This record gives sequence, structure tokens and C-alpha cells, in this order.
Amino acid sequence: MKQNKQLLLQKRPIGLPTEDTWKLVETDIPKPEEGEFLIQCEYVSLDPAMRGWLDDRRSYIPPVQIDEVMRAGGVGKVIESNHPDFNEGDFVYGQTGVQQYVVSNGKGYHKVDPKLAPLPMYTGTLGMTGMTAYFGILEVGELKEGDNVFVSGAAGAVGSVVGQIAKIKNCKVVGIAGGPEKCKYLVDELGFDAAIDYKNDNIASKLKEYFPDGIDVYFDNVGGDILELALSKLAMHARIVICGAISQYNNTTPVKGPSNYLSLLVNRASMKGMVVFDYAKDYQKAALEMGQWMAQGKLKSREDVYKGIENFYETFLRLFTGEKLGKLVLKVSE
Amino acid sequence: MKQNKQLLLQKRPIGLPTEDTWKLVETDIPKPEEGEFLIQCEYVSLDPAMRGWLDDRRSYIPPVQIDEVMRAGGVGKVIESNHPDFNEGDFVYGQTGVQQYVVSNGKGYHKVDPKLAPLPMYTGTLGMTGMTAYFGILEVGELKEGDNVFVSGAAGAVGSVVGQIAKIKNCKVVGIAGGPEKCKYLVDELGFDAAIDYKNDNIASKLKEYFPDGIDVYFDNVGGDILELALSKLAMHARIVICGAISQYNNTTPVKGPSNYLSLLVNRASMKGMVVFDYAKDYQKAALEMGQWMAQGKLKSREDVYKGIENFYETFLRLFTGEKLGKLVLKVSE
Repeated sequence: MKQNKQLLLQKRPIGLPTEDTWKLVETDIPKPEEGEFLIQCEYVSLDPAMRGWLDDRRSYIPPVQIDEVMRAGGVGKVIESNHPDFNEGDFVYGQTGVQQYVVSNGKGYHKVDPKLAPLPMYTGTLGMTGMTAYFGILEVGELKEGDNVFVSGAAGAVGSVVGQIAKIKNCKVVGIAGGPEKCKYLVDELGFDAAIDYKNDNIASKLKEYFPDGIDVYFDNVGGDILELALSKLAMHARIVICGAISQYNNTTPVKGPSNYLSLLVNRASMKGMVVFDYAKDYQKAALEMGQWMAQGKLKSREDVYKGIENFYETFLRLFTGEKLGKLVLKVSE
Repeated sequence: MKQNKQLLLQKRPIGLPTEDTWKLVETDIPKPEEGEFLIQCEYVSLDPAMRGWLDDRRSYIPPVQIDEVMRAGGVGKVIESNHPDFNEGDFVYGQTGVQQYVVSNGKGYHKVDPKLAPLPMYTGTLGMTGMTAYFGILEVGELKEGDNVFVSGAAGAVGSVVGQIAKIKNCKVVGIAGGPEKCKYLVDELGFDAAIDYKNDNIASKLKEYFPDGIDVYFDNVGGDILELALSKLAMHARIVICGAISQYNNTTPVKGPSNYLSLLVNRASMKGMVVFDYAKDYQKAALEMGQWMAQGKLKSREDVYKGIENFYETFLRLFTGEKLGKLVLKVSE
């Protein structure tokens, strides 16, 4: 008889997660009661922010608890419904968690259309990562036409969309990513003006070359040394969007703060943090505009899909080793 | 025959300035030509920012050059004039530099009235430091009625005015300063709600006690550990005004960056740098409002005046040892 494979948090990691951070268990498939429906989860979203949810500290959402199903956004199919608004056969996006089946009362779920876009894209460019990019660069970054824009984690799910939106807005866009393959992808496929390979290039001299007038907007996904170098190249009234700090998430020593933050003073610049949930009321408007850009071929989306809930741990680590391109997605059931 | 004593930069300091950072020389008193006037300098302003002007690096204004008169704002009396708008006997404020006599064509100078306020106050609350406080807390800090406000360097020239303005705007204001005398001054004389003594108190636990709902605006004059502690107590949508970092100005090791800057992300907060010169077009309006507050007894000003241009070095160090209260001013001639 079929069972529900679920990935539970077993042990809080110190530094990079290890194999025993999670455990896979099998339980009975839950039954939807009146007003509920059962989802067979197909794809779950793997994001750097998930690393933060493993630590037992105050943050923008509570940490995942030990023996709780690992939190994750996911897309699945309604296979049984006692809910008036969701029917068998509907596809939905919501916080499914890393598991094969989940019951919901509909809260936090919305329908998605597999005919309009491949399902994994609803976890990425048409989902939270796309929303993060959209509101991050346009609202928090106060992007203006012609700005000189620098994006870190540029080949990642958020960064690649940030850079493309800035190009749509007629900005000069330079991304930084690891390795020649990703850099080629940024320039050749996504239309970035240039890319810096942090594994092989001298970042400081490349920044000097690409930003003779300084950086107007720096969209930061990585923190650490790259944040520090970007701070040293700010233009007057520059805006830094703090979206993440992937280089620091697995630190066992204190996070590296930017020692040249006084560049904010010299350049009358700002550094502002963001969490995408704050923009929920405008998601729909943003999704519509993003969809139009995709239809016009101005915005490309790439998902890197791996298979098997039992491969969660190895796949998750790709976020930090950089061995993936675009949005990282795990297929958890057939 | 009378000579002009001038303080020249002799040697760039590494860390805290030493006696040989400057040298005192005597030169002939300059002669004003047509369209110029001669000022006898009386009071010069001593500010933490002056330390930054000694370093040979790109900043918001060029560094003072070796053998150049040390840059400083000052107040003096016009004693000879060939200028249509400035008459013998007028008192003026401008960038006099640390010297006893200076000739000007009027650029950057404005008249001040010794009958309305004591002359040293025009270097402080009614001068650049007052303007810094005013625009820093109201514009950069986007102060709102009822905000919970934390100010570092609170007994200093800028911090003491920042805190008083926040009180005028019905905010809760806590300052941090060194030693019980300064803390008493903040609460008893300036009306702060509370003061933290960084030399004797446990700062983290005091912040917890005074800001149960977090800090809405942190006005930072000091940087370092206090910035770090403030970051850890931010309320949602908090604003940090980076006005200075006096704890770091004399570092010989790299500046300490805030390792918990990701609190900006968690709290959707911002950190923004400022330089007062950007607000020059609104100085007059601000000075008028500040003057009214002083007349109403809502804003108090305190100047700590030392005497003798030959005592510049020892007096300047008081900025960093904290051995002064309010605005530090040096009387350079009788």
C-alpha cells in the first residue's frame, strides 16, 4: 500500500547541513476532511533561505522544529477534495513542505495552470523567487532607467531575474557568478552587459572596469567579500538591496560584516533589507507583468530539476556549492 | 609686531593623532585686496569628522594637504574690509581653518549675531552640528511621532541635539554616553527618557529593558560594538542613520563592520549614510526652527570651550577620549 514519504528535520546543523540533518520517514497518506483537499506534491522549491529556517533563532518566520516536515514551497495536484474551491485535477502552489502528500484547507494555496507554463516555473520565476526579484529591484532598489546595476548570485533563481528586469528597464547590468559557464549564460542567454567570474577573475579590477561611474544599485544575494567590494565602488545615492547572504549562511564563525560600511556615509547611500512576503498584496500585478515579459521573450526562466525526495540532502547542497543553474527544484513524486 | 599663528598639517597620523601631526607656525597677517576682507578668528569648531580629513583617501571632501592650514569651521570678526557686503565689526562664520587671521572674498561665509547667541554656539547647535542633527534625524531618519529612538554619542554636539529634537517630536529617546556625569546630563538637563553608560552598564540588557518593542530609529555617531548591539534590537522597518563612527576613526586595523547586518533583512530595515552639506539649501529654514525651539526653552545647547591655538592637539584628543561635554570649541585668539 502506498505511503507518504516525508522529510523531517532531525537535528539542527552547525555550518553546512549533513546527512543526519534530516530523516526520511513514511507515514499514512492523510485524509482530507470537510473543507479540505489532498495534494500530491510534485515539485518543491529549494532556496538558500531554507538554511536560515534550520537555526533556532528569531527571524522573519519561526524556525522549522525538530521532527517537523521540512518547510518548502511546492506545486502539486489535487487528488481528492472536500473543498468547494479546489477540485480534483487542479494544480496548486503553496507551502507543501518536503513530502509527497499533504492536506490543506486552501489557506496560502493558489491554483496554477500547467498549460501556461511548466509546473516547476511556478516555484521560480512565476513564484516566490520571481516576486523577490521583481519587488527587490524595482521597489527596494528604486531602480531608475539607465542605472548601473550590479547583481550577485546572478545565475541563481533570484539574481537572473533581477538582472533581466534591470535590462528591460534599460540599465547597464553586470552580474557575478561562479565559473565561465554561468558567466557565458548571463551574457549570451540573458543579455547581461558583462559578467564577473568570482572563481577566476580579479573582482575589484573588473568592477573598476565595468563601473567607471560607480554602482547605482547593488542587489546582494551573497554578502561577504563581494558585498564589501561593491560597497567600495558605490556611486552617490546608491542603493544596496540586501536580499540574502548565501556566502554566510553556513558560517560557524560570526558573519563577516562589511568593514567599509562607512562608504554609505561618503556616498549618501543606503542599504535596505527585504522579505518578499511584505509585497503579497501586489503579487498578482507583478505576476501579470512578468508573464507579459516572458511572452515577449524579454524574460527567460531556467529551472534545474532533480528527482527523488530521497535525494533532497545532496540536491540542497547544490545551492551552496553552486552546482546548478537557475532555479533549483526537486521532483518529489511521480 | 603681531603675527598670524597657523596650525599646519605636518604629517598624516596612523591611528590617533600625535603631537607631530600638526605644527604651529607664525606668518605675516594677510592683507585683504579689493573684494576681500580680513577676519580675526575667535572660535574654531572641533569635530570628529576632522580626523577623516587627515587621511589621504577619497571621501566626501578632499583631504587636508601636508603644510596646509588645518581645515575647520570658525567664527570671527571682520577687522578690515574691501568687500561691499561685509563691514568692519561684522561677525562671520565660515571655513576659517585653525589660524588667527584669514582673508576671504565672502564665499562660504555668512554673518552671525553675537547679541542673539554666544559666538561659540554658531559653530555648534546653530551651525553645522545643529544642521547635521536636524536633517539627520528628521529627513534621513524619517522620524515619526512616537518613534522609539536610540542615539549614540548622545552627550556630544550632534547627539545631544538629535535626542532633544526627537523629544520635541514626542518620541521615546534613549542615549548612550560614557560615564555617569554625561548620563545624568542627558536625563536631567536634556530630558532624555533614559541614558546608558557604555563604560559601566551592560548595554545589551539595558537596550532590552528600554526598547521592549525594538528601536525604530538609531542615530549612529560611533559605529563598532554599539552599532552591532543596536542592529540586534531593531523594530520592523527601522531606520539607521549613519552620521559617523567615532569609535573607528583612529583604527589602525580594519574598521569593524556590523556582523549582524542581516538584521536589516529580517526587520526590513535600512541603514543610510548622510553628509550635512547636501541640505545646504534648507539650512536657513532649519536654523529658524532651531532658534525658535531654543527661545522656547525646548532645545538646549552646551559648548565646551578651551583656549589657545597652541592647545589644539590636546583639545582635539578630547573628542576621542570623551573628556568634554557638548560641542568642543577652541578659542584661537583674544
